[in-house]
Amino acid sequence: MELKEIAKLIDCEFTGDSFNITSMNTLKDATSSELSFVSNSKYIKDIQDSKAGAIIVDKATVQYVPDGCVALVVDSPYWKMATVSKEFAPLIEDESLSSPIIGKGTKVSSKAEIANGAKVGNNCTIMAHVYIGAEAIIGDNTIIYPNVTIYRDCVVGNDCIIHANTTVGSDGFGFATNHLGQHKKIYQNGNVVIENDVEIGSSTTIDRAVFGSTLIKEGVRIDNLVQVGHNCVIGEYSVLVSQAGISGSTTMGRNVVMGGQSATAGHLSIAPFSRMAARSGVTKSIKDPNKTFAGFPLMEHRTWLKLQGKIAKLLK
Amino acid sequence: MELKEIAKLIDCEFTGDSFNITSMNTLKDATSSELSFVSNSKYIKDIQDSKAGAIIVDKATVQYVPDGCVALVVDSPYWKMATVSKEFAPLIEDESLSSPIIGKGTKVSSKAEIANGAKVGNNCTIMAHVYIGAEAIIGDNTIIYPNVTIYRDCVVGNDCIIHANTTVGSDGFGFATNHLGQHKKIYQNGNVVIENDVEIGSSTTIDRAVFGSTLIKEGVRIDNLVQVGHNCVIGEYSVLVSQAGISGSTTMGRNVVMGGQSATAGHLSIAPFSRMAARSGVTKSIKDPNKTFAGFPLMEHRTWLKLQGKIAKLLK
Amino acid sequence: MELKEIAKLIDCEFTGDSFNITSMNTLKDATSSELSFVSNSKYIKDIQDSKAGAIIVDKATVQYVPDGCVALVVDSPYWKMATVSKEFAPLIEDESLSSPIIGKGTKVSSKAEIANGAKVGNNCTIMAHVYIGAEAIIGDNTIIYPNVTIYRDCVVGNDCIIHANTTVGSDGFGFATNHLGQHKKIYQNGNVVIENDVEIGSSTTIDRAVFGSTLIKEGVRIDNLVQVGHNCVIGEYSVLVSQAGISGSTTMGRNVVMGGQSATAGHLSIAPFSRMAARSGVTKSIKDPNKTFAGFPLMEHRTWLKLQGKIAKLLK
Repeated sequence: MELKEIAKLIDCEFTGDSFNITSMNTLKDATSSELSFVSNSKYIKDIQDSKAGAIIVDKATVQYVPDGCVALVVDSPYWKMATVSKEFAPLIEDESLSSPIIGKGTKVSSKAEIANGAKVGNNCTIMAHVYIGAEAIIGDNTIIYPNVTIYRDCVVGNDCIIHANTTVGSDGFGFATNHLGQHKKIYQNGNVVIENDVEIGSSTTIDRAVFGSTLIKEGVRIDNLVQVGHNCVIGEYSVLVSQAGISGSTTMGRNVVMGGQSATAGHLSIAPFSRMAARSGVTKSIKDPNKTFAGFPLMEHRTWLKLQGKIAKLLK
Repeated sequence: MELKEIAKLIDCEFTGDSFNITSMNTLKDATSSELSFVSNSKYIKDIQDSKAGAIIVDKATVQYVPDGCVALVVDSPYWKMATVSKEFAPLIEDESLSSPIIGKGTKVSSKAEIANGAKVGNNCTIMAHVYIGAEAIIGDNTIIYPNVTIYRDCVVGNDCIIHANTTVGSDGFGFATNHLGQHKKIYQNGNVVIENDVEIGSSTTIDRAVFGSTLIKEGVRIDNLVQVGHNCVIGEYSVLVSQAGISGSTTMGRNVVMGGQSATAGHLSIAPFSRMAARSGVTKSIKDPNKTFAGFPLMEHRTWLKLQGKIAKLLK
Repeated sequence: MELKEIAKLIDCEFTGDSFNITSMNTLKDATSSELSFVSNSKYIKDIQDSKAGAIIVDKATVQYVPDGCVALVVDSPYWKMATVSKEFAPLIEDESLSSPIIGKGTKVSSKAEIANGAKVGNNCTIMAHVYIGAEAIIGDNTIIYPNVTIYRDCVVGNDCIIHANTTVGSDGFGFATNHLGQHKKIYQNGNVVIENDVEIGSSTTIDRAVFGSTLIKEGVRIDNLVQVGHNCVIGEYSVLVSQAGISGSTTMGRNVVMGGQSATAGHLSIAPFSRMAARSGVTKSIKDPNKTFAGFPLMEHRTWLKLQGKIAKLLK
């Protein structure tokens, strides 16, 4: 989309040379043909270092936009970003794409639907009422049980098992809110990438990224009714027990264990081999690996046990 | 159904003039052609003010039934109400209804099923393995992702998005229990009404009302794996984050935010612009608008922070 | 499978007489044609009493294997058990089985799929996008709403109602982990048995047993988004409210009530008529029936109320 059209769309004066914007991205990841945005002054450092071709900013932050990057100055950058995000959303289904490619030895139920542009590897089992969206890619030897939905552009590796009624790639929970309390959708134009040897339970939901990918790394085990928010990274061999909830943009190292009904806040980093007891609530990043935690707010498990003793004493 | 037949069904002596009962309803909302019930003496005021044509009551409460309203006197009114509720349940599917009506520009997957009597507006996208039940109504420009189930009689507005594997209109969790501990289903003969510009995540469940409607008002945003019980009202632009649970008959004003894994008890009223932190548990109604809460039992967020400080001191 | 082949598969020296192993089972339930395993020295008593034809053990526990039972001695019995479990997994679908049998008066949507070898009773309603797996059995008068998945070998009784998007019989969350932190799937070769007059809400997940059955007894009521782990037994007329989570191998007596968002640890026994308030966390077995509990860690409800009073005082 031409930059001058974007400017027009968000009621921004634009007099410079226009060029083609291929997509939107974060300040950190945007390239010279991409548009980014800044909605919070705490990202000033990221603005200065950004390689974005253009940035939607407000008056207070325009001074930090680096040379060679076009500033689109508006009153409500986050709201305007939401407006533009819709323009980069791909079609939900695209009949003009070529017929899906199905590998050798793969069984696809006649009651499954695989959209044009999708590709399924060899020796897979795709059961009834499965939906695989446009340009999704499924590896070899993967089993997808009935009523699973894989949204467009998502990637599932080899030797994976996805149980019934699970959703991979639904939109992350993103919207801008104006001064009237109304919401505008931020289109989630990223995807989900699931690496090899991952098993996912039933009725679990893994949201697609707003930009880039939500990533489930090799060997991960996810139980039933688990929520994984947009842009999370779940480290190799990590284990998410039933009804756990991982908020958006949280990154965990390898072999993290999240107990049943546990949860994390968003934008955290969790060290490898961390173990959260059932119903733990992680509100801060964890730097030291290989520790066991419990409680909400979170504390080391042995501290939590001690605390329960102190609380029991209150009753005497 | 004739009132004398209903009386016979619940083993109640009936000698007066019979008339046609069109449906069941609450004491407050029942009209002169409707049947109501009272199972708890705390509703005596509602009995006296009721416009119901007939009321199922026990011996202790029959004295409060107003003139012109027929009292059906039984031992276990709630159990008997459950018995009668089945008689007013519509057919799950009704082939005698006319073929579904699909608007202009609407794409319906050949693998979706839209029941007779349903109506879908213009420019909608109805994807594979969607089910839309009898007499359901879908507005214009609405997108329903794969494997969504909309039960019969439910209404979805314009410009809505419903993500994969979500259920709208499953039966509320209602049953009567006898002295042997056995349960009898209370048929949920109401519906769900979703207004315009609502987005609902994946694997979320919204139960139909027992009478009347469960209501999701304009501009609401609901995340994945959220439970909304029967007869709830979710106010305009409210936000329900992943894994939140709203118990039956709870009503919230506009722009309420329920954090991840938060919950409410049933039959509460929550003031507009209230904000619940993640994992809050609301057990009482909230009267003052625009406050932030946390914890279970619930308290103001700043009090909760203070409490965490006090609890931390216990460990010293 | 021949015992000598199993030994070869797990790199175990085997010089005795081989015989046919029909399946795997627990130490307690295995018969003389079955293979069991022991992964933890606390089960020594069970080894000594086992009727298993053969047991996978390590060097430390081989001494307890009774006469007449073959010991397969390996370094990592649990990992090796996982290896063998795959050999006993039935085909996901088996086209060689006979066409499904459908009872009189039963309506099956043309968009449902019932696998070969399955049997559905009389007067059932099987709606669109339902999947019923191989050798599953459904009783009479049962209603299965759209997008429900019943995995192979599972049994549903008479007069049941299963709401949309629910999963019955997905694999329990079982795997062995090696010293590198990698996981190997333990195939879940049991099933789920749901007795008569059970109602299950939408997007609920009930996992199949690793051996034997996960059992939902007569008259149980399960709400939406509930998790029932593998090998659980839910007693007659028990009530599981929305978003409750029951961990694997927990057994409850009749008329237990689990409040919303409550949970149990695994391998517990819960006395009949126990009542857990919303968000209770049960970490120990409950022996005395008919008590009301709350909190996490769990305590009697009246104690919990007292504790909240003490905690409120901390704030003064």
